[in-house]
Amino acid sequence: MSNNTKIAVRTASSTYEVEIGSDLLPHIGARVDSLLNGGLCAGKQRVFVVTSPEIWKLHGERLASGFPSAPVLLSVPAGEQHKRLATVERLAEEMAQHGADRDSVLLAFGGGVIGDMTGFLAAMYMRGIRYVQVPTTLLAQVDSSIGGKTGVNLAAGKNLAGAFHHPLAVYADTSILSTLPPAELRAGLQESVKAGIIRDRALFDFLDTESAAVLRGDRDALTRVVADSVRVKADVVSADERELGLRMILNLGHTLGHAIEAATQYKQLLHGEAIAWGMIAATGIAAHRNLITADEAAQIERVVRAYGPLRSFTANATELVALTAKDKKNRSGARSFVLPLGIGDATVVRDVSEAELLEAAEAMMSEVNSLQVTA
Amino acid sequence: MSNNTKIAVRTASSTYEVEIGSDLLPHIGARVDSLLNGGLCAGKQRVFVVTSPEIWKLHGERLASGFPSAPVLLSVPAGEQHKRLATVERLAEEMAQHGADRDSVLLAFGGGVIGDMTGFLAAMYMRGIRYVQVPTTLLAQVDSSIGGKTGVNLAAGKNLAGAFHHPLAVYADTSILSTLPPAELRAGLQESVKAGIIRDRALFDFLDTESAAVLRGDRDALTRVVADSVRVKADVVSADERELGLRMILNLGHTLGHAIEAATQYKQLLHGEAIAWGMIAATGIAAHRNLITADEAAQIERVVRAYGPLRSFTANATELVALTAKDKKNRSGARSFVLPLGIGDATVVRDVSEAELLEAAEAMMSEVNSLQVTA
Ligand SMILES: NC(=O)c1ccc[n+]([C@@H]2O[C@H](COP(=O)([O-])OP(=O)(O)OC[C@H]3O[C@@H](n4cnc5c(N)ncnc54)[C@H](O)[C@@H]3O)[C@@H](O)[C@H]2O)c1
Ligand SMILES: NC(=O)c1ccc[n+]([C@@H]2O[C@H](COP(=O)([O-])OP(=O)(O)OC[C@H]3O[C@@H](n4cnc5c(N)ncnc54)[C@H](O)[C@@H]3O)[C@@H](O)[C@H]2O)c1
Ligand SMILES: [Zn+2]
Ligand SMILES: [Zn+2]
Repeated sequence: MSNNTKIAVRTASSTYEVEIGSDLLPHIGARVDSLLNGGLCAGKQRVFVVTSPEIWKLHGERLASGFPSAPVLLSVPAGEQHKRLATVERLAEEMAQHGADRDSVLLAFGGGVIGDMTGFLAAMYMRGIRYVQVPTTLLAQVDSSIGGKTGVNLAAGKNLAGAFHHPLAVYADTSILSTLPPAELRAGLQESVKAGIIRDRALFDFLDTESAAVLRGDRDALTRVVADSVRVKADVVSADERELGLRMILNLGHTLGHAIEAATQYKQLLHGEAIAWGMIAATGIAAHRNLITADEAAQIERVVRAYGPLRSFTANATELVALTAKDKKNRSGARSFVLPLGIGDATVVRDVSEAELLEAAEAMMSEVNSLQVTA
Repeated sequence: MSNNTKIAVRTASSTYEVEIGSDLLPHIGARVDSLLNGGLCAGKQRVFVVTSPEIWKLHGERLASGFPSAPVLLSVPAGEQHKRLATVERLAEEMAQHGADRDSVLLAFGGGVIGDMTGFLAAMYMRGIRYVQVPTTLLAQVDSSIGGKTGVNLAAGKNLAGAFHHPLAVYADTSILSTLPPAELRAGLQESVKAGIIRDRALFDFLDTESAAVLRGDRDALTRVVADSVRVKADVVSADERELGLRMILNLGHTLGHAIEAATQYKQLLHGEAIAWGMIAATGIAAHRNLITADEAAQIERVVRAYGPLRSFTANATELVALTAKDKKNRSGARSFVLPLGIGDATVVRDVSEAELLEAAEAMMSEVNSLQVTA
């Protein structure tokens, strides 16, 4: 416990800590209690845990054991298709029936889907109550639980409804990741690779040299990777809470990655697998522009692939380029694009042309198509 | 136009103006255009108007005529029963289908129901876009359009889901009120009476001496009343954006008023009619405590009744007192209650006992019951 890492997120609207460790779960109850009641167990401020039956079955007892009095459980089925306003409304009705008031506190215990929904539920319930994130996937630990972006999907698109609402605290216990399907772990680790590329060469090098330990789920290796990845996201969010500038660099690989996800109706690749392709394409564009050396570009490709395999999908290059024009992050028509400038450094540009994009997408699709043939 | 009144709302999170006049409607388009584009008609930032068919039929043309390019219309049926997440979601889907992006702007054109829903839609669409309020009921002009409280009802209770999200500007044209059902006008004016009691003796006196002109809908009289009422709300909200202290005084008459509304399932009285009873009861409690002189208490009763008639409803005193314990504004059990200290001054107390409340509720119900007998 003593060597847990604590990283602060400091924004204009709030400051909170992300704690990372490999045996945190049984201690979260006491931590939340002391955040709320100064450790007096006054217990007036009730805790509502949002989770799915699968996650609760695997890890619920260890979480629950740490609470001075049992929290109320609110259950949602696993799966992105439930990340909708109707689910959030149903949870809000249940909270009201349990007498939740403005002093009540939500705790998100799950992956990014549960974290995003719980954060939005907290943002809207009685116009805003407090919440805590206990992320249980690698992606949620290094990315979605930090930064205050919450929300749900519309039929018209992902994450189109939501709010900025920061948690009181984030507790990331890497031991929870042991039950994660290996493909989810690997895909999530692409966000760590991304963090290394854009801001942290030491993290990148660790991911490079220690990939075997990390992929095997070695606790110390994973805990270090999570902590370093969290630090990158926390720093970027602290500098740019509302995604007006710097925060855009977190989108390395995401412009084409989102296009791939949209083209395949989010059904063929995991998010991290799609952005892996996107990162390789972005690195290709940067290399063509001579913004990055051939050597560093090759290192990036190697590490991205180490956390693969990059899986094939069905799309064509023209369609992908057209989809990038619809990116939610575009404003008044200008497409923003993140390019690596080296390992540990990236920039946002707005002048990537259709032709450049198409060339990159075509190069990507020719590899994708060769994979399909051999598969 | 030159004698329109402009009142600023200044909060930590934003500053904006409320403009009040009696011929504002045809000029709102140009004002919004200049707010958005510096008057250049650049028109990149699209405007989406949320309204109901009835309101649009009555006043839509005058609003639309002022826009350099036609706004997109989003229609919702009139009525509190539609103030739900499902309506907001449907509007969000329509916006997305029309290609609304982060630079798009919503305009609420209707009463408090449409204003609250549109504000919440703006708060959540892509995690927050801008919006403008064009309130069309007296209640919306003097109360709901100002202060940034937005939201919808749950089955479990009114306004239980929402957000604080301030508009870019509020435009209150009192000429729109000419088509309002007289009962809606009178009920709304109880919020102005409330504003006078808690903060503005001159407004109170004007409402007292000029009640005939105000109730007849005289434009100058109404415009003055709206402007003065807006000033009270704007000042209170500016001092206490998040309803942590001072803003509670806006709840004069609302503790019992909300209990009456809940006891009658929101079906027997308009909101303003319920708070009229609540203001008389609160004044009675203050008089019993010798916090207010008998003379001032009598003046308050007289003016509240001038904007009546106070209508009867079906409830009993014990039930009403029990319902006040459920008030959303209570925290950790303590019931807050606003008492007038005189005309133009009020305070929030937390020590109103059940016995005091019951006595006041019983006095109220004995008048209510006598009304039922004579009705
Ligand atoms: N808010 C943000 O800033 C942000 C950033 C990135 C992604 N996201 C969102 O995050 C979501 C994706 O999150 P995700 O990848 O965590 O997906 P997820 O929440 O759907 O979890 C993936 C799967 O793993 C299961 N699971 C979770 N924890 C487990 C564990 N410890 N052991 C075994 N199984 C476990 C889940 O039940 C689910 O089936 C998307 O909706 C995305 O939009 C949000
Ligand atoms: N956000 C806040 O701070 C706040 C404060 C007070 C009340 N509210 C909310 O406001 C709502 C009540 O608002 P309301 O009283 O305006 O009710 P409303 O919006 O339902 O309007 C009342 C009726 O008048 C009609 N109408 C509106 N303008 C008209 C016009 N110019 N001519 C003819 N008919 C017209 C409407 O169609 C409706 O039938 C409630 O939902 C309440 O919760 C919010
Ligand atoms: Zn991502
Ligand atoms: Zn009111």
